[in-house]
Amino acid sequence: MLVLPSAAVGLSAVQIQGSQMKTKPRNALYAQSGGVSAVINASACGVIEAALKAPRQIGAIYAARDGIVGALTENLIDLSRESRATIRALRYTPAGAFGSARFKLKGIEQNRAEYERLIEVFRAHDIGYFFYNGGNDSMDTALKISQIGAALNYPIACIGVPKTVDNDLPHTDCCPGFGSVAKYVAISTLEGGLDVVSMARTSTKVFVLEVMGRHAGWIAAAGGLAGRKAGEPPHIILFPEIAFEQARFLQRVQQCVTDYGYCVIVVSEGAKHPDGRFLAEAGTKDAFGHTQLGGVGPVVAGMVREAHGYKYHWAVADYLQRAARHVASKVDVEQAYAVGKAAVGYALKGMNAVMPGIQRRSSTPYRWRLAPVPLALVANVEKTVPRHFITADGFGITAACRRYLEPLIAGEDYPPYRHGLPAYVRIKGTPVRRKLKTEYKL
Amino acid sequence: MLVLPSAAVGLSAVQIQGSQMKTKPRNALYAQSGGVSAVINASACGVIEAALKAPRQIGAIYAARDGIVGALTENLIDLSRESRATIRALRYTPAGAFGSARFKLKGIEQNRAEYERLIEVFRAHDIGYFFYNGGNDSMDTALKISQIGAALNYPIACIGVPKTVDNDLPHTDCCPGFGSVAKYVAISTLEGGLDVVSMARTSTKVFVLEVMGRHAGWIAAAGGLAGRKAGEPPHIILFPEIAFEQARFLQRVQQCVTDYGYCVIVVSEGAKHPDGRFLAEAGTKDAFGHTQLGGVGPVVAGMVREAHGYKYHWAVADYLQRAARHVASKVDVEQAYAVGKAAVGYALKGMNAVMPGIQRRSSTPYRWRLAPVPLALVANVEKTVPRHFITADGFGITAACRRYLEPLIAGEDYPPYRHGLPAYVRIKGTPVRRKLKTEYKL
Repeated sequence: MLVLPSAAVGLSAVQIQGSQMKTKPRNALYAQSGGVSAVINASACGVIEAALKAPRQIGAIYAARDGIVGALTENLIDLSRESRATIRALRYTPAGAFGSARFKLKGIEQNRAEYERLIEVFRAHDIGYFFYNGGNDSMDTALKISQIGAALNYPIACIGVPKTVDNDLPHTDCCPGFGSVAKYVAISTLEGGLDVVSMARTSTKVFVLEVMGRHAGWIAAAGGLAGRKAGEPPHIILFPEIAFEQARFLQRVQQCVTDYGYCVIVVSEGAKHPDGRFLAEAGTKDAFGHTQLGGVGPVVAGMVREAHGYKYHWAVADYLQRAARHVASKVDVEQAYAVGKAAVGYALKGMNAVMPGIQRRSSTPYRWRLAPVPLALVANVEKTVPRHFITADGFGITAACRRYLEPLIAGEDYPPYRHGLPAYVRIKGTPVRRKLKTEYKL
Repeated sequence: MLVLPSAAVGLSAVQIQGSQMKTKPRNALYAQSGGVSAVINASACGVIEAALKAPRQIGAIYAARDGIVGALTENLIDLSRESRATIRALRYTPAGAFGSARFKLKGIEQNRAEYERLIEVFRAHDIGYFFYNGGNDSMDTALKISQIGAALNYPIACIGVPKTVDNDLPHTDCCPGFGSVAKYVAISTLEGGLDVVSMARTSTKVFVLEVMGRHAGWIAAAGGLAGRKAGEPPHIILFPEIAFEQARFLQRVQQCVTDYGYCVIVVSEGAKHPDGRFLAEAGTKDAFGHTQLGGVGPVVAGMVREAHGYKYHWAVADYLQRAARHVASKVDVEQAYAVGKAAVGYALKGMNAVMPGIQRRSSTPYRWRLAPVPLALVANVEKTVPRHFITADGFGITAACRRYLEPLIAGEDYPPYRHGLPAYVRIKGTPVRRKLKTEYKL
């Protein structure tokens, strides 16, 4: 079952920081974490624009260069040196404008020094607000920083800003970043399907599109939005949640080609054999005999060729899908901006160790609101696609899934263009003068 | 050197069909050929809308189902049964609405029966105008059909409508279909590059994007539009026109990672070793020991890993690039429509065995016009990227190339959306009643 954020998630878990924040403005630090998305900078824009509106409580606004790595190494960017136009342009600029990082802090017990270093940097720059924009791991990190702050008697509001294209955070109806990758994958499936059906008589009969989602099949599910009527692609979706049965899959491919003349398959990179091995591990070797990692798309296409001999094509969207700001979902952009703005609002209200969660009020028309969710509830929990969102045969999405997904890809939010290309912004990135004498080795 | 269409291409090669076409309207047949594109239906729209405006000369308007295959098997679609709204919507619908075919007619000497069958079908349906929308091979076919028509004393105007994402037709400044795939690839390179640079500190350092172009590197060249300043991606483009030197390539990758922290590579599927073998053939085998065809992207990424051990990602755009109507170039859509419309105009003027070629009048501002090009000049000639469009080191595009390419991706021509997805149209496809008793076996 899909766990929806409970309206009963209250503020009981939220610590009120006392009155000292009202007396003297303290500085804010924003950091991006993990894989980037088409709209993570829209969240940055929301954080920064909201923070700029609270000069009595928030002094300087900094960003960590390369995420938590910049915080550890005291590589901070002074956002007051960026123009308002640049900040505004972050709303339509994909990927991580300040740099992100795949760097998971260990548990406090295993590496207390890392946390103490963070607090040292925060103290040196009088960081009173820390906004951490990321997924599961990052919410855990933000929670631990708030705990170590309390333990070291350093007052800091740690607020999570949810972001993940995988849509696997619990206690939020969806995650900023997902709606846009979902829209990209649905459009790509639609367009690729139109291509294949028009060529199938004499050429390609099977098309495989590999999409992201190592553990949760939300992105693959979004491919299902492309088809509304029986027989429309995608004809088969391979989810990480459903154990792959090769014989049944190959039979279905053949049936599709017989019935419709072609077969479009969307496969999640996390699709697995019944024994738990990823399909992507299943066999290709390079000229040197080394296992060729990645590429479940070609693996699946190869199976089809072996069994049926159909002409096939495969595409691997990879980073293109999560960076595709040119076709972002308007709803996703609005939610990304809103969670950034709300995070600042929570901090100013004295909350700590929470993130804004998205609550769905209704699907048609789509209505949503934000509510604070304690990070302790979110950290390290993964929300996968519930079984009732997947058809009984395991190869498609149900009407309930469509009702859930469709509002998330609604609306277009096009960036401005120059010379035929989106006019994405790059920040100046003026560094904040270092205050610590110690270098930190990662 | 880039061969530009000469203004001196006159009408001397054009046969005037005599006066019988003025007396009684004859029917028109439109067919799509070869790999489809984001804008081939815009050309169909141009043909059909122009033909509908000439009822005194053109009677019924038919389309061949699945390209020339439908013409041979007498599978024709009655376009008068499609609404005007459907015809109009073809302008923003990608891929081949009537079906296309990879089916090359043999030479007249080898298979005269095939050509005679075509004339038999044409005669049965009083086809006086044949519009063939395709690339090199198709222009050759259209030429041969006009020749066989003359030989069999069957009057028919055969007009080519240029289409190829590969941009390799001679005697036209560019080909409809190319501008949109160029825009898609430039945007994808830009967006993928932003993703990688934001993660490079702790994660992926090398990103490889594989694009189409088996023999000509125009699409790969378009990736070069993403970077305007030194150090901006793509850092390396691998063209089919430049023999791949592995050691020099790997050294450049390392230099990029040292200088910029990351390296973005655009590789054409047609990239070749000095001995002429495709890189894509260079080695991966599947679990059964069979050579894994396709996927030069993973091959190149694997080389980088072997040599340098950098974390890498690769994407293969495949059909997504040529079906990406959601981000089509406005110039491309306009040219695609215009060549379709002009083809009808040529036919009505009594021309035969010509296609509309695009002539560039100026690059800034971009101005172009159409002029008829004899198919005999176009058929089976391939225009590759000239050496002076490629930087001396073979890894990038020159300013001259940018001047040529940039106007072709200018402007956005967004389709309408419904339920978060482009509202592409599907034709009803009402079949024309068959008149011949004979079945044709392909």
